[in-house]
Parts: sequence; structure tokens; C-alpha cells
Amino acid sequence: MQFSMSFIPEIRFGENIHQTLGRAARTFGAQRAIIVIDVFLVQSGLSGSVTKALEQEGIRTRIFSAFTGEPKLAHLRAALEMATGCDLVIGIGGGSALDIAKIVACCAASGRDPMHYALAANPLPKNPLKKILVPTTAGTGSETSATNIFSGPEGKKLWIWGAETKADLVLLDPSLTATLPANLTAWCGLDAFVHAFEAATNRNTHSGAQFYAHEALRLIIGALETAVQEPGNLEARGKLLLGSCYAGIAIDNCGTAIAHNISHALAGLAPVHHALATALGFEATIGWLVEAATVDLDRAAGACGVDKAAKLPAFVSDLMDRCGLVRALPNAFDAFSAADLAREMKAPENQPMRRSTIRDVTDADIDRFAARMMALAKGQ
Amino acid sequence: MQFSMSFIPEIRFGENIHQTLGRAARTFGAQRAIIVIDVFLVQSGLSGSVTKALEQEGIRTRIFSAFTGEPKLAHLRAALEMATGCDLVIGIGGGSALDIAKIVACCAASGRDPMHYALAANPLPKNPLKKILVPTTAGTGSETSATNIFSGPEGKKLWIWGAETKADLVLLDPSLTATLPANLTAWCGLDAFVHAFEAATNRNTHSGAQFYAHEALRLIIGALETAVQEPGNLEARGKLLLGSCYAGIAIDNCGTAIAHNISHALAGLAPVHHALATALGFEATIGWLVEAATVDLDRAAGACGVDKAAKLPAFVSDLMDRCGLVRALPNAFDAFSAADLAREMKAPENQPMRRSTIRDVTDADIDRFAARMMALAKGQ
Repeated sequence: MQFSMSFIPEIRFGENIHQTLGRAARTFGAQRAIIVIDVFLVQSGLSGSVTKALEQEGIRTRIFSAFTGEPKLAHLRAALEMATGCDLVIGIGGGSALDIAKIVACCAASGRDPMHYALAANPLPKNPLKKILVPTTAGTGSETSATNIFSGPEGKKLWIWGAETKADLVLLDPSLTATLPANLTAWCGLDAFVHAFEAATNRNTHSGAQFYAHEALRLIIGALETAVQEPGNLEARGKLLLGSCYAGIAIDNCGTAIAHNISHALAGLAPVHHALATALGFEATIGWLVEAATVDLDRAAGACGVDKAAKLPAFVSDLMDRCGLVRALPNAFDAFSAADLAREMKAPENQPMRRSTIRDVTDADIDRFAARMMALAKGQ
Repeated sequence: MQFSMSFIPEIRFGENIHQTLGRAARTFGAQRAIIVIDVFLVQSGLSGSVTKALEQEGIRTRIFSAFTGEPKLAHLRAALEMATGCDLVIGIGGGSALDIAKIVACCAASGRDPMHYALAANPLPKNPLKKILVPTTAGTGSETSATNIFSGPEGKKLWIWGAETKADLVLLDPSLTATLPANLTAWCGLDAFVHAFEAATNRNTHSGAQFYAHEALRLIIGALETAVQEPGNLEARGKLLLGSCYAGIAIDNCGTAIAHNISHALAGLAPVHHALATALGFEATIGWLVEAATVDLDRAAGACGVDKAAKLPAFVSDLMDRCGLVRALPNAFDAFSAADLAREMKAPENQPMRRSTIRDVTDADIDRFAARMMALAKGQ
């Protein structure tokens, strides 16, 4: 057995822990912070209270919230311009806010454009700005990963990867997730579930990452339905948030698999929430996947409270039912065929997730999965 | 629920993983490294092969192995002098080698004497030298902790504490632990067991640290007897090493308790191996401790495979029997009385471990424990 686990940032967990942000920023010696935050959190007043807390510690602040959907190069460049003169980056929100914050912390340190680092074209600066990340969805795990996704100049999905983009401090505050609507709670929780499951069962998996992935599966399964049904249940919200964070650690070390091949391929066709696409891709492939009948699949099943992997497809569909998951793609997908999706699934940038899948994924498998997915587009 | 987990360094685990040290040092951009290494590892040829690997990567090296027993101020100063001009510190060995390496990395960066930082007198430098730690005993967990112990000018135990002393990279190589003699394997493994147990059950415990502590208990209990009986069993050695590392993470966040009060107090009287003293202190107090009957104690029992905490005293004594633990203190303790030990146990520097214990520790408790311990000095 041999494995490697990337560093894990300091994590502070607890109800209202975000109120310690000012003090935390001061211990980093920060003078001026840029806060990358989702626009609806600005509207909710969160950015105002955070700004006040930082200013009470003598730290000047700038708010960047001019982004929607998944990060685009233009968002990164606008944030980067605002980051001039800052020595701390704070990301508050979903995966997009965190990814922008992580990239900006690196680019601001070197003065380089994000494209300089896209697809690992050049090494990242060794001394990026300090970063504090505060996830407000329990899903992406970006707060503990080294992966950052954005759309390049031609709209193509690009990534910047490296330990230099990782957080210095993560604040996990369940109370910030309590207002997440039921459908997003379900989608994001299922996305985190798939992160943990794929990292625990793909070709790159190892016992170091499974330690986190299995705990993530236990936490998410124990809390997801409750969090969907009772939005204000902070115990369930906390378990989801911690589970999603641990799932982030797992994918940071072992990556994902076929469900993420599908969700990235879908995103190449038309806008769709990453978490919904991943959940649908997972349900469409789990029955096929468990035929691999590996020890890792059985262990993941065990962490789900299921005695063998063969029972997972029914278990997963039932979990999705209980969380009210509507199996449908956005209307924009009506314009595309299964062949369109299959082509995206076979595109070079989506091959790592195909190859890491524990079963060989043949072109015929892809055509079948694509047909199954596109049936969800037209309500068939 | 609220908790905080300090950062966890990158960890690479595997048989012969230490052979990747040269490459790892190069990725840190190192030009000149000081290697703090136990003298018997110099004699075994390990320092030679490590030096060669580093020099093949263009990194010049200096070897510091002029220390024995627990680190003393003079050792630190000698290592520090040798570290001038180095940009990387590598610690290879038991807890002493690692603690010296961690302190030197900080002091070399600032040019300050270790006493400047002792007992948190001054903040540590923010940019210490990079540190790679390679533990060769499975016990202290120093590779994942921020605590470092040394004896000051008057022989008094001092500490330097801070995240700045933590490793940048940890290499866990079971093959380096295979030559550890049976008695040291048992002592160090039991020390790690106590780290995990105390961190999982004391007043500072929380679910964040219990995640690591419980896994450490499972790993250590599943492997300790085998490692003692079959020194070359690398699977068992690996589990012990990983368990000890996870126990280090647990104490890094929650600290220890009464067994460590006793072992530190014993060390104040006469030289004794820390791990042996801790194991003996644990057996002398576990029967009293479990009367607290807390949920945390029952959970720790569960991780030990025991259905309730009340069964732990018998379980622990049986484990120690199976590992061949001789319940005796070194002869030097014959010169001391129970009153001497009780006085040390009540000394100010040992009160944090007394106060963190889940039961109130009265003076009468201390007198009783001291009498029990000192009976081990005279073979009564």
C-alpha cells in the first residue's frame, strides 16, 4: 500500500463561526482584504456584517460579487483588478465564489493573468495571498481542494490546479447554509455524496482518502434527507457541511469518475447546475458501475449502510426520491441529441474522468449512458 | 458543537517512500539541507543513503546527530549553529530528532535562540525553513503536532508550541520502523494508543479530533501485538505508523490527560523513556478514569472493540500483557518516594494535563496514583 495525501487546511467548524472571521483575518496580519462573495449574500446583509467585523480589526475591505453561474475569465480578471494592493482573499459562497477567490489569490501575488496558469501551462507562485474560505453550500468541497474551474475566452471549461490555490483557513458555519432552498440542498448534497463515492471507488482510490470519503458518505446519508425536509435543522446542516468538506479532501487526492464525465459533458452543451447534472449522471451509471464488484465498492456500500454494492442502485434511487430529486434536465437540452452528449463525453478534456472509472468505459457504454441522460431532457 | 482542527501537513505513506526524499526536497527548491537524525540511523547507513539521494538532486547536506535522550538546549544550539545557510530541515528518527528539527527550522529563520520562544515568550517567525519529517518510531506523533519538548538551562522541561513548527511534508515509511526492538515497539505503540485515548476522552475533546483518534485506536489495536511478535511484518508496522500519526493529529488539537501528567512528573525525577512512563501511568489510572462513565469514554471503548468503557481496564492490561510490557521503572527511581512523585505531579508545569482530565483529580487521587507508580520502582 502506498498513498499520498495533500495538506489539509486549518478547519474551524461551528454555528456562527463566521463571526470570528475578523479576528482570524487579523492573525494573518492582513491590512486589506478582497471579499469574493455571491451576490445574494450581499443582498442578505452577510457581506455588510463581514465587512464591519473586518473593519473593526483595522482591515480595509473590497467586495467583489460581479459574477453569476460558473466562473468565467472575465469574472476572474475583474476580481483580480480589484485585488490590487490586497494581502488577503476571503471567499464566501458556493464553489464559484471559492474558486474565484483561490485563483485570484495566486494571480494577485504574481501579477499574472489566469490564462498564464490555465491547464498547468506554468507553475503557480509559491507565495500566494492568504486565503480564508467560507462555503455556504454543502457540495463542492472547493474549500479543501486544489482544483478550480472556469470558462476560458472561447467558453471552454478550463482549470487551474495546485496546492498553492488551497485555503489557509476554512470556516464551516452550518447557520450560513440554512437558507439554501430544498432543491439546491438536495443537489449539492448529492454532488458531495458522488464526490465521496467516486473518490472511494475509482482507479486512483486508496485507504488514505477512503478514511475521509467513507466518513463523508456516513455524514451525508445520515443528514441529507433531514436537511432537505427541515431547512433550519442545524445539526443536519452541520453534518452535510462537514461531509462535503471531507468529500472535498477525498477528491483532492483521488479525483472523480464517470458521473463527473457526464456532468462536465452536459455543461459543454448547455447551462445546467453542476450538482444536478452530477446526481443525474450518477443514477444513470451506478447500476453498470457496481457490476465491477470490487472490494472498494463493497466498502463504500458499507459506509452507506448497505451490506453489498449490488444493492447500491436501489439505495441511491431511494435516497434521491426521499430528497425530492426531479429527474429532468433544463429545457435548453431539448435542442441536443444523445449523439451530441456522447461526443462531449468522448472529448479530450473529459477523458481523465472516463479513464479513472473502475470499469473500462467503452464507446458503446458512452452511447448508452448518453441516450439515458438525454431521455431526461425531453421528459421521456 | 464547535471545534477547530489545525492544518495537517502533506503525508506520503508507503514502504520505501523515504527513497523519494531527494525528489521531495528538490520540489521545495532547497539548496542546502540540515538533516537531524538519530545517531544509530547514521550507523545503520540511512543518513548516508539519504545524503546521497539529496546530493543527486544538487542539494548540499549537513548531518546533525549529536544528541541522545530527550532534546536539551545545548543540542538545539549546536544544531542551530550547523543550520546556518540551510534552507531546508529534515528530521529523521524518534520524537527527539523531529522536535529538534522543528525548533531549528524556526530559530534558523529568525536567528533567535530557542529560549526566545520557550513557553510562548515570543511569537514564532512566520516563515520558518521548510521541514520534512520522517518518523522512525511509531509513537510520538511529533510529525503532525505543533508541540516540541526540550530541557532548559536548569534541566527543567520546556516547550515551544506553534503551527510554525509543524511539518511541510511527512514521509511515513513502515520499512524504517522494522528494526525497532520489541520493547520499544510496545512502548511507543502504547504511547500512541494513550495519545489517541486521552485526546478522545479528555475535557478538550471534540468530534473533529475523535475522527482521527478513533481511527488511531482501531489501527494500533489491530496491529500492535503483531508488530511486537513479528518485527518484519510491514503491514502491521504500517498500521502502527499511520495510527501514531493520526494520534498525533488528535493530541495536536485536544492534548492529553492524567497519564501524561504522570509521565512528565516521572521525567522530572529521573531519566525514563517517555513512552514506557506513559503506558505505566495509563494502566495505573484507567480503572479510576472510566468511573467518569462519559459518552466519549464509551465511544473510545467502541473504537477499541470493547462494548463499554467499564471493560477498558481489563482490556488495556491484557493488551499490555500480550505486548510483553514489563511493569517496572528504571533503577534510578529507587531513590525516590511516592511523595516525591506526587510533588512533581502537582507542579505548575504539569497542571494542564491534570485539569484536562475528564474527572477532577484531587490531591488524594494524586497521592494514590503516585504510590501505585512508585511501587513499580521497587518491584513491589
